Amino acid sequence: MTRKVLAETRYLRLVDDDGWTFVERANARAVVVIVPLTAERRLLFVEQYRVPLGRNVIEFPAGLVGDEAGREKEALIDAARRELLEETGFEAATLSLVSTSATSPGLTNELVRFVLASDLTKIGKGGGTPAEDIRVHEVALREARAWLTEREHQGTLLAAKVFAGLYFAHEAWGPG
Amino acid sequence: MTRKVLAETRYLRLVDDDGWTFVERANARAVVVIVPLTAERRLLFVEQYRVPLGRNVIEFPAGLVGDEAGREKEALIDAARRELLEETGFEAATLSLVSTSATSPGLTNELVRFVLASDLTKIGKGGGTPAEDIRVHEVALREARAWLTEREHQGTLLAAKVFAGLYFAHEAWGPG
Repeated sequence: MTRKVLAETRYLRLVDDDGWTFVERANARAVVVIVPLTAERRLLFVEQYRVPLGRNVIEFPAGLVGDEAGREKEALIDAARRELLEETGFEAATLSLVSTSATSPGLTNELVRFVLASDLTKIGKGGGTPAEDIRVHEVALREARAWLTEREHQGTLLAAKVFAGLYFAHEAWGPG
Repeated sequence: MTRKVLAETRYLRLVDDDGWTFVERANARAVVVIVPLTAERRLLFVEQYRVPLGRNVIEFPAGLVGDEAGREKEALIDAARRELLEETGFEAATLSLVSTSATSPGLTNELVRFVLASDLTKIGKGGGTPAEDIRVHEVALREARAWLTEREHQGTLLAAKVFAGLYFAHEAWGPG
């Protein structure tokens, strides 16, 4: 195995492994994506400007696990709870891991953990850390697909993981 | 805007845009993921060893669009048809784009196009190009979720886009 680091920043590392180039996170063990359902059976989506795409993107709340000093060993579920609260202002009493899968197997070694969150209580205002500018959308589970399509037609980009999350949401909580 | 290329290989480019690091494809305009349904209502999945992850990964057939000399302007649907045939040996009479979404909005500017493929005819043996070693799985639509879970329990990694594709499959073709 001839693994070479071609370039590295604080966040990412470009790696060559025997001629195959890919990227890995320099500062995280995993990414957690939270699929949150409120007591009113509404899903919570977040929307923010994403530099790589130069556009607003609609996603489920998400964050890196173990990316902050002193939190390297933070448990996955704790990270999910913290990110959900930071981004949406909702605290979840029930969280469960439904899938660990590969973000994009040819491009990165990043794994994504999908966590379902329910029994939510609003205790903060959300919006992310001071460095983030996150808008929260509450959308009825049964109307989520139509709402996403409408937002897409209006020119907002959707993250592919939104549809994976929607799959898990319907599997766990039914059509609406 | 201060966009800097930090490193570049034949395939990927590590970019810094005002302090935000991300990766972009150096050789493709888009990635197409094909969700194929046979006449027997079976989905086709592919399995291959993925260098970044060091493991076998189950995915839907996929490929880059415009990544080969002389094919830069190849239409998306043509690319989907070609990749499906190369990887699975099936030719599709009906193909339709269902979603254009972001692979991983903080990590890359890559967009993924999901294409549903049906009215399939087996005309080749599949397995990919000579450089690839791809195993094809035919799985009944209504059993796909259980099969994926079983494969995961056996230690095979799943790609997150499998669940997005499964969402679109069930939306278009029903539960089974």
